[in-house]
This record gives sequence, C-alpha cells and structure tokens, in this order.
Amino acid sequence: MKKVYLMTPGPTPVPSEVRLAEAREIIHHRTKEFSDTIKIVSEGLKPIFKTKNSVFTFAASGTGAMEGAVCNLLSKGDKALVIKGGKFGERWANLCKAYGVEAISVEVEWGDVADPAVVKKHLDDNPDIKVVFATLCETSTATEYPIREYGEVIKSRPNTLLVVDAISGLAACDLQVDNWGVDVCVSGSQKSLMLPPGLAFASISDKAWPFMDKSNLPKFYFDFKKARKALEKSDTPFTPAVSLIMGLKQALEMINADGGIDKILERVTVMGDATQAAMKALGLKLISKHPAKALTGIFAPDGVDGKELKKTLEKKYGVMVAGGQDQFEGKVIRLTHLGYICQFDIITAIAAIELSLHDLKHPVELGKGLKAAQEVFAKASI
Amino acid sequence: MKKVYLMTPGPTPVPSEVRLAEAREIIHHRTKEFSDTIKIVSEGLKPIFKTKNSVFTFAASGTGAMEGAVCNLLSKGDKALVIKGGKFGERWANLCKAYGVEAISVEVEWGDVADPAVVKKHLDDNPDIKVVFATLCETSTATEYPIREYGEVIKSRPNTLLVVDAISGLAACDLQVDNWGVDVCVSGSQKSLMLPPGLAFASISDKAWPFMDKSNLPKFYFDFKKARKALEKSDTPFTPAVSLIMGLKQALEMINADGGIDKILERVTVMGDATQAAMKALGLKLISKHPAKALTGIFAPDGVDGKELKKTLEKKYGVMVAGGQDQFEGKVIRLTHLGYICQFDIITAIAAIELSLHDLKHPVELGKGLKAAQEVFAKASI
Repeated sequence: MKKVYLMTPGPTPVPSEVRLAEAREIIHHRTKEFSDTIKIVSEGLKPIFKTKNSVFTFAASGTGAMEGAVCNLLSKGDKALVIKGGKFGERWANLCKAYGVEAISVEVEWGDVADPAVVKKHLDDNPDIKVVFATLCETSTATEYPIREYGEVIKSRPNTLLVVDAISGLAACDLQVDNWGVDVCVSGSQKSLMLPPGLAFASISDKAWPFMDKSNLPKFYFDFKKARKALEKSDTPFTPAVSLIMGLKQALEMINADGGIDKILERVTVMGDATQAAMKALGLKLISKHPAKALTGIFAPDGVDGKELKKTLEKKYGVMVAGGQDQFEGKVIRLTHLGYICQFDIITAIAAIELSLHDLKHPVELGKGLKAAQEVFAKASI
Repeated sequence: MKKVYLMTPGPTPVPSEVRLAEAREIIHHRTKEFSDTIKIVSEGLKPIFKTKNSVFTFAASGTGAMEGAVCNLLSKGDKALVIKGGKFGERWANLCKAYGVEAISVEVEWGDVADPAVVKKHLDDNPDIKVVFATLCETSTATEYPIREYGEVIKSRPNTLLVVDAISGLAACDLQVDNWGVDVCVSGSQKSLMLPPGLAFASISDKAWPFMDKSNLPKFYFDFKKARKALEKSDTPFTPAVSLIMGLKQALEMINADGGIDKILERVTVMGDATQAAMKALGLKLISKHPAKALTGIFAPDGVDGKELKKTLEKKYGVMVAGGQDQFEGKVIRLTHLGYICQFDIITAIAAIELSLHDLKHPVELGKGLKAAQEVFAKASI
C-alpha cells in the first residue's frame, strides 16, 4: 500500500495515458496505421529537438544511438575531441576507443564544464578533428554544458561536427539543435519523453550526412543511412518497438496539449530552481558548479553517509532518488525534475529529504526547504 | 467494431496479462525487484532454449543480437559459412559483409534447405571457417532447417562455432541448444514469447567465449562480455527496456503455467499440421519443401494475385497475414501458428482464406479446408 515516488533521472514516471496506449492490442508494423504513426512521431520529435532535420528512432537504449554517431561519422584512426566531465562524457571516450577512433579528451573536473575557449584551442591546434562529442546534461554530475557556445566554435568549421548526448537533457535543458549547429543529437525515451526505456533517437544535420560517405567503420543495426532510406517510406529498417512507439505518439500528444516544448522547459526550470533553492535553504551543497535544471545533485552533508540517505529516502519514505556513480559513489544523491514530474512531487521529495536528514541526526529545520521551494512556486505559478 | 486477427509471423498477439504487466507503473532498474526480475527471466529463458548456458537480453530487435554474434566472435578477414535460403539467411551474409568477414555462402533455393553434407564439405575444404551462420526457421520461406544435423557436423570441430538465428523458430520449432551444439542462439521477443518487439536474446556456449578473446571487431552496445559481467550481478550494461522485461516475466509465467516449452511445441505442431492439411485440401501449394510448423506459407493459386489475396483477407475479413518478401513478393501469403495463437484462430484464418479465394473468383469448396483442419484437431486434442 505504501506509495513509491520515482524521482530518479531515468527511468522517470510514465503517465497512465502512455502506459495504456502501449497496452492496447499490438498492431503490425507494416500497416498504414503504423506508417502513419512513424510519420507522426518523427515529425512530432522535431519541435522537441528544435530542428528541421529528420529525427530517427531506434529500438535500443540511448547508448545505441551514441554508438551510431561514432560508427556512422568516423573512420578508424580519425581524430575526435571528447568533453569528459562525468560518466556519460566518458562513455563517448569509451565508444571512440572501441572503434579505434583517436579521442583527444578535454578532462573536466566532475561538476564543472569545459570552457568553450579550450574547445576552440584544441580545434585550432588539431584542424583534423572530425567530431566533437559533448553532453548537454551530464546526469552523473547534474551539470549543464554550454552547448550553444561549443556550437559557436564548431559551426563555421566545415570539416568538424558537433555531436551531443542529450539523453537526459532533451526537453529539460534549453537545446536548439539547428540554431546552435548540433549535427547529431542523441536522446532516449525514459527521460523527459515520459516513456519506458527502449527507444533511442538521433537527429542528423545536412552537414553530417556527407561524413557518412567517408566512414569506413562497420555498422548495421545502427546504420543511419539505412534508417534514412526506411524513414523516407515512413518505415524502419528493422522491426520497431511497436508498443513503445504507440506510447511515444501519446506522449507527444500530451506534450503538445500541455503547451509544447517551451512550456515544458519553463516548468522544468521552475522545478529546478525550487529544488535548488530548497537545498540551499537546508545548507546542502550542490554537486555542480553549473547546475542543470533537469536534475539536482547534492552532496550528503558532513556526518551523513550518502548511501544511508538514499536508503532512508527509499525504504522509509518510498522516494527513489539516484545515488552517486564512480567517484561520487556514496557521496551524493540526485533527484530529477524532468518528464512527468510536477511541483508537488518536488514538495514530496524535499519533505522526504528533510525528514531523512532528521532521522539520520543531521540538524535540520523541518519545513525550511519546503518554504524556499514554495516561494519559488508562488512566484512562478506553473 | 470490426475485429482484427493478427496472424503475421511477428509481431504476434500479446496476451492482455502481458500487456497489463507492461502497463504497471515503471520501476527503476537499479532496485532489488528489478534485479530479481532479471535473474528470473534469464533463468526462465534457459528451458525455452533448452540450454544451461546464460541467456542475455538486449534492448533491441533480434537483428541487434545477430550483429552481436558477428562482431563478438569474429575478426576482420575471418572466414564464415552462411546458409542462405531466404531473407534472413541473407541478413547473416550482409552482417558479415558490413564487418569485413569473408562469408562463403551456401546458396539454397527459396523454400529448400542446405544439405548437411554440403555444410560438411565446405568445412572439410575450409578448416579455417570459424563460424557457420544458420537459420532455424527461415520466416521468408516458412522453412525449417535441419539445425540438429548441422550441429552434428560442427560440434566435433573445436575451431568452428554454430550460430543460429532462432528469432521466429524459438519455442515454435524443435530446438535443443545444448544437445545440438548451438553455440550462439539468437532470438527476439515478438514471436513465440508473446511480447511486443523490442527485446533480443542470445544464449552463448562455453565453446564460444574464448572466440571473443580473439575477436578484434569493434563492439559496444552489443558487447557480449559486458553483458556477461553485468548479468553476474543480475544487471544489464545499459538501461534495460524495463516494461518489456516485466512483460517477459509474465509471459514466461504463462508458458510455465501452461505446461512449459514441450507443451507449446506440441500445440504449434498440431496447428501447423492442421493449417497445412487445410491448405492441401484446398489445392493450395506450400512454398516450402521443408515446411516449418511455426508458420505456413502458400503460393497464391493460378489466376489469383497474392497481393489481392492478402488485401482481401485484411480489408474484408480483418485477418492480417504476411505477404511475400523479395522474390516471393506478390506471390505468397504466410500465416503464423506461433505464440498466443490457438486452434480457433487457425479456424478463423482458414475460413477467411476460403472466403477470400471465393471472393476472388477462385473455385473453392467452402468448408473443405476447415474440415481437414478440424480432423487434425479432433485427433490431437490440444
């Protein structure tokens, strides 16, 4: 009977309307209804990415589309720049390594971002860098990277592409794929799009396609050209994840009915502000120097074990948050504001954090964080 | 209001119990409940494959696991033998090509199978063939291949593996992964397992693992060693398709409650026999010389256009069957007996075929096919 509140940065709660759309009887993927659905969701994703480019959907986790970006754009021995300030930046480096791509890393302290000037310097020193791999919202450090500024540096260079992992950042952080010159933007279903995991997305710019003609890396399931050929006929190259795509159609309808992408971004921003104001009011330290609005990460206060805090939230209060990964393991908790999360979920999470800290004998004034959050909500009225 | 009868060889109907299991509120994948689920489904898949090997689950279509078999086991320039008698045999050849593996093809006429003696001769002539890629049930030709006999030829050769695409064949055709020496067996969720598409499976033998140490092909998302390391902790290397895995747990429970894999196989066999008896009674020609029980493919009779027959079945009667692919396009229809299909679905499909042929002015004695099918059902009592 105890309620569970899923506040992890993916999977995020899936609305019942989406779950029921997925639960209807399955339809065959070679029918007019399903072709129409493919067309509708492909078009419907464009405003979310703020792009006129085609957006492709794969039956995979987001990492699958990240792998696609590497193996479609590059050749063995090619040079790439990887911005590496957390677990997901490292994933780009690991992908490059797996494919024999020479990755120059911009090493960033966890919680910080790479200076666009450093990116520029690397590109000036290495004009043969073909791709810059970046992360919009580095989930492991709850940090938002200045993709717009990286785009300014890269856009004018005809031989260099900007590839962005927006798996947790899409529809949660400001992102303007076309205006900012993001050539390949990758995302996944289990974040702001309010779906279960199992779909990966990639938008691809006109500038990126010719790079694929030169790529000699092996590719098959994540072959972007095959995806393009299929999408021209409102089809997919391999059997699509039919039920998840029916859910995606429903989720996009809900996003539109609710005012579209800009309204979503406004709400996430307010919820991020409220959460972060609450954490500050409670004297808790954010893990990021450039906090994303998509999620908030805090260090467990002195004398409190991060794992205990996470466990208390989960076991005693039913509030599921994420802990820390790698170097942050046991030290931090992270909670999301993206997707199907509203202001009273934030209130619930803050109340549970206050109570848990109290349980763990950390001095805390109950209600202080809640008040700070309410003050943000009162001003914003989302 | 008109009922739709999905008789295509994938996606197949998904029971409401499975759809509802998928529709429950999403849980996080790093919880005890989900770890337990991973353990339960990994163990539960073993008797379906008839193996003691680990069975891995990927968020992907079946083709993803096929790609995994190629890129994990082989190196560039390695030699492989591909048994190619339909669209899916060709997929193995295309995958080898994409990865620079030298594929020797055993070309088989569509609807026929490769003689095990021919496979043996190739292996004797080319002892450096590392992998034989075969298909259990070639869906495009409704043909069952003699995997057991291929296994007999390969099993004793320490430097050669047998890899089988059992995407439509699993739990529909007889398959004994361990007894027959199938080293990697690949399958998918949207066939006999009664799930939506979106999960791929691979069982991996002890003989196969050392091949991976020598493989130099790039791999990441479908890296089998990463999958093994994760499964040791009842985990997955990347975010799993949580809702589909909850459905898989439910589907495996239903299979067990219904008598397990052998009972399923018995029922599919009877339904295949009944359908094929009906088709013969109606004077229709099977497209396969070695018809699988998983599905039945027939040529449209002289004077009847295959596309018209498929269209009449679909538009007038709501019975969705598959048409022909590539060289069979417009000439054949294929209907399934696998997964969540029972004898009265078969009766429905036969009745609709009789009526459609009548509509298309083909001389047909209404009820003749139905009688032949009923006679099979009456004897078998499934």
